[in-house]
Amino acid sequence: MAGLLGFLGRGPERHAPDAARGDKGPFLEGLMQDVPLSIPDILDHAACFHGAREMVTRTLEGPIHRTTYADLHLRARKCAQALKRLGVKPGERIATLAWNTYRHFEAWYGIIGTGAVCHTINPRLFEDQIVYISNHAENPYIFTDTTFVPILEKIADRLDSAKAFIVLADRAHMPKSKLKNLICYEDMIAAEDGRFNWVRMPETAAAGLCYTSGTTGNPKGVLYSHRSNILMYLASGVGDGISLHSSDTILAVVPMFHANSWGLVYSAPSNGAKLVLPGMKLDGPSVYELLETEKVTFTAAVPTVWLMLLQHLEANNLKLSTLKRVVIGGSAVPRRILEAFEDNYGVEVIHAWGMTETSPIGTLCVLKAGQTDLPRAEQVKIKLKQGRPIFPVQLKIVDDEGKALPHDGKAFGRLMIKGPFIAKAYFKGEGGDPLDADGYFDTGDVATIDGEGFIQITDRAKDVIKSGGEWISSIEIENIAVGHPKVAEAAVIGLYHPKWDERPLLIIVPKAGESVTREEILAYLEGKIAKWWMPDDVVFIEEMPHTATGKIQKTALREMFKDHVLPTAK
Amino acid sequence: MAGLLGFLGRGPERHAPDAARGDKGPFLEGLMQDVPLSIPDILDHAACFHGAREMVTRTLEGPIHRTTYADLHLRARKCAQALKRLGVKPGERIATLAWNTYRHFEAWYGIIGTGAVCHTINPRLFEDQIVYISNHAENPYIFTDTTFVPILEKIADRLDSAKAFIVLADRAHMPKSKLKNLICYEDMIAAEDGRFNWVRMPETAAAGLCYTSGTTGNPKGVLYSHRSNILMYLASGVGDGISLHSSDTILAVVPMFHANSWGLVYSAPSNGAKLVLPGMKLDGPSVYELLETEKVTFTAAVPTVWLMLLQHLEANNLKLSTLKRVVIGGSAVPRRILEAFEDNYGVEVIHAWGMTETSPIGTLCVLKAGQTDLPRAEQVKIKLKQGRPIFPVQLKIVDDEGKALPHDGKAFGRLMIKGPFIAKAYFKGEGGDPLDADGYFDTGDVATIDGEGFIQITDRAKDVIKSGGEWISSIEIENIAVGHPKVAEAAVIGLYHPKWDERPLLIIVPKAGESVTREEILAYLEGKIAKWWMPDDVVFIEEMPHTATGKIQKTALREMFKDHVLPTAK
Repeated sequence: MAGLLGFLGRGPERHAPDAARGDKGPFLEGLMQDVPLSIPDILDHAACFHGAREMVTRTLEGPIHRTTYADLHLRARKCAQALKRLGVKPGERIATLAWNTYRHFEAWYGIIGTGAVCHTINPRLFEDQIVYISNHAENPYIFTDTTFVPILEKIADRLDSAKAFIVLADRAHMPKSKLKNLICYEDMIAAEDGRFNWVRMPETAAAGLCYTSGTTGNPKGVLYSHRSNILMYLASGVGDGISLHSSDTILAVVPMFHANSWGLVYSAPSNGAKLVLPGMKLDGPSVYELLETEKVTFTAAVPTVWLMLLQHLEANNLKLSTLKRVVIGGSAVPRRILEAFEDNYGVEVIHAWGMTETSPIGTLCVLKAGQTDLPRAEQVKIKLKQGRPIFPVQLKIVDDEGKALPHDGKAFGRLMIKGPFIAKAYFKGEGGDPLDADGYFDTGDVATIDGEGFIQITDRAKDVIKSGGEWISSIEIENIAVGHPKVAEAAVIGLYHPKWDERPLLIIVPKAGESVTREEILAYLEGKIAKWWMPDDVVFIEEMPHTATGKIQKTALREMFKDHVLPTAK
Repeated sequence: MAGLLGFLGRGPERHAPDAARGDKGPFLEGLMQDVPLSIPDILDHAACFHGAREMVTRTLEGPIHRTTYADLHLRARKCAQALKRLGVKPGERIATLAWNTYRHFEAWYGIIGTGAVCHTINPRLFEDQIVYISNHAENPYIFTDTTFVPILEKIADRLDSAKAFIVLADRAHMPKSKLKNLICYEDMIAAEDGRFNWVRMPETAAAGLCYTSGTTGNPKGVLYSHRSNILMYLASGVGDGISLHSSDTILAVVPMFHANSWGLVYSAPSNGAKLVLPGMKLDGPSVYELLETEKVTFTAAVPTVWLMLLQHLEANNLKLSTLKRVVIGGSAVPRRILEAFEDNYGVEVIHAWGMTETSPIGTLCVLKAGQTDLPRAEQVKIKLKQGRPIFPVQLKIVDDEGKALPHDGKAFGRLMIKGPFIAKAYFKGEGGDPLDADGYFDTGDVATIDGEGFIQITDRAKDVIKSGGEWISSIEIENIAVGHPKVAEAAVIGLYHPKWDERPLLIIVPKAGESVTREEILAYLEGKIAKWWMPDDVVFIEEMPHTATGKIQKTALREMFKDHVLPTAK
């Protein structure tokens, strides 16, 4: 297959920067209309052809709120009108610090409809990060939920560009605050009549901004365009993907501040699906209540949310009576979540992979024709992979020299990705040029690709242990180690070794009340991994350091164990 | 709804030619990769991620042929290599005169892969039309099936640009022909090694050409681009549309020479679906055999094909054991076809509307959430409509002054359509500018749009009878008249009337062996149509004039009855 890749024209001459705009020389221009892909058109379409379709929100104040695409369309235009009146200019980055609610949805389309850029900020970030991001993006206005006003009170003095904060609330629910420059959202739009024509932009104009919370260095901004966002949700809407029907009811648990809520903020109105927004309550009982009372057929979120839901279902012996499909991404789908949904509750799991830089969907995992006849255990093995790229996404795995590796399910290399909704750079050029010579973006992930084209992430590139020129996957060892009944969490990092360059150190947090030995762990791993992958040492700690988004912070572990000497290295 | 349309920003200022490229003034460019949408990428994707997936062809020679996307990919590149060796240049129009077979599919991608334009010619056209079209497009090469060599022999002398004819056959099946310049396709590609990098084009470059067989004047060429073709199949691939799964098996009965086979030539490989091609045998028994032996789940064609299939099923008491969905377009779906498929065979019918100028899919008819609970008769009524536009297609109906009409299911006006895969002009400027001031293409159809956004074609604009400033739908009267048990075919045309400008004349072909009177027909219509719609006269003829594609030729009827004086006009 690696050989085939050469034939595929995936060589350098194809991906030279100029090639993206076509070969030099004459060509015949097609005679199709010059209509740019435009995000506000989606809301026009929803209002015009699905005007009565509902959007349901669990408000922060508590009650369930109901509206329609026709009304959202009117209010989004009022919001755009108000922003224009405030002096917002095309290209300016207007921030939102908000949960998934109808007001956040209106603000999203309202901002983009003025030609400005909807800049979602993850409210779970540390305050310093929020300050950095908002200043870097030069946000003149920040939409905020009432719940985040206390954060803004603490950091307002350090927000250099912010002229005012628009609180997504009505007058009755405006918070008492020491902040002077608070605008009440409902008052603001009540002053407008909605007679507003969306500001038209070229399709490559910026429409969205989302910062990645890198584990090292400052967050970097990914600047989406009208074109990239629309192509992403159309491309991921295929049959083997987030294929939405107008008869579907979607619970968008995945936040709008997570890379376009994986496209749901577009695909639901575009397809006339009913959209249910959970506000701030993502706990098991709250999510379950919405799934059942609103007769949800499709939902999407990270594994953590589903763990909470499944625990609630199991503890209370509940059923899922309408849910048919769930897309899970953000991190790898754990086997117990996959099996619980599919085997116990009859809900199809679609494993997705992507990142902020890929808008975010890069791959989706749905079984192919022949695979549906395989024994269940084989199917589960495939469904735990991250899936196949959605056209027009192009993927390859490469070795340290950048050479494409075969699709054999064994060779693992850096996962490189290319396409019209993949980032080519970060806002204001931060981090330099992230593309290789062929125009591929380096995901920082390490993966295999099997003969059927399914990718499986085996590690982060920086976490791979390079032992004597060969790669050892830290994640694979971790996944096996956490299977030990006394282990709560496990992490593997590479430490210096005079002979092999690096060798693995396994770091364990035992389950509460359990004690476990180095020898027990090594005995458990034996036979489950290749001999030369066996960790050279095992250490125990009480608590694992985590990032703001809940991932194990390996940089902190490397710092913690920088002076640790492996017994084999002595 | 008409009022809302104003607010929607669908006013002139939005659709001024400049607006398509965005407002003047500064904007922020997004930072997404400049990767153009490119048709050959689809075949790369299929070969890379669905390489082993089958394509099955009923060959013209008889036997069933099987291949895979990996092999098609290799052979398409060999074809491109050979074309380049023949001197084919980017932008040149290379014709195909061929049934749906794997060789036609290879030639399609091979032609486009050289940067040239795949110009499909409908072999059912009259010889004079084929000559006109080929000369107008300046085809240097014409791919042809062996079955069409006799046609080419007759017209070769009049084909001004044709240097050679590439016969889609192997050496053993090459026809004996007086034509000197025949190239054997299999010999041609056997000389190549397939080491060919697709010629990269800007996404707005022409990739396909298809002439409309207008009922008046010369055929006009619609010039598709890489962008328009890819956007069309992605947009029509939504859940409520031609949503294909990699596990689907598609029978592409709709010819590749009918506007991109409604996108199947792209959507099947893009989604890794198995593609079955019927060659030249579209009769009931042949289509049925392929549906069953290849376990087809999805198919698409015009009503005529389905009539033949249903007759075969009924006559032989057969079942459809794997087919799930059928897309029907080209002309309105007759009730008996809809009901037979859905009620007798459990196959979902998706009614589609479009035209060569719309790439072709403009609307698709799938029931919305609430509609699936309606009584069956109500559902059928909706499913007989042409459906809702697929985003990003924009639709409106307008009156004689160009004013948008309400979405009330009653008002009918000219159907206007706009979007990135709608034609803005014809090849070489034939027919002038077909767009209105707002950039909408005039479909020439007259339609209603109901409150749920479903359009229903009620007539062709030129066939509408304008009686005293009001419009009478010829098709509606025809549809009712053919319900009379003694009527085989019915047509309505407008004739001059001194008071009302035009009044309807009903033309009837009685069923074989039946005789029927003017009074019987008028009595049958009474109560079924508005009084002022009642035809002013009824006449009987033995045979109805038809176009090459089987439609009633109203121009011929108008000529035939140009001297007929209505009794009310005397």
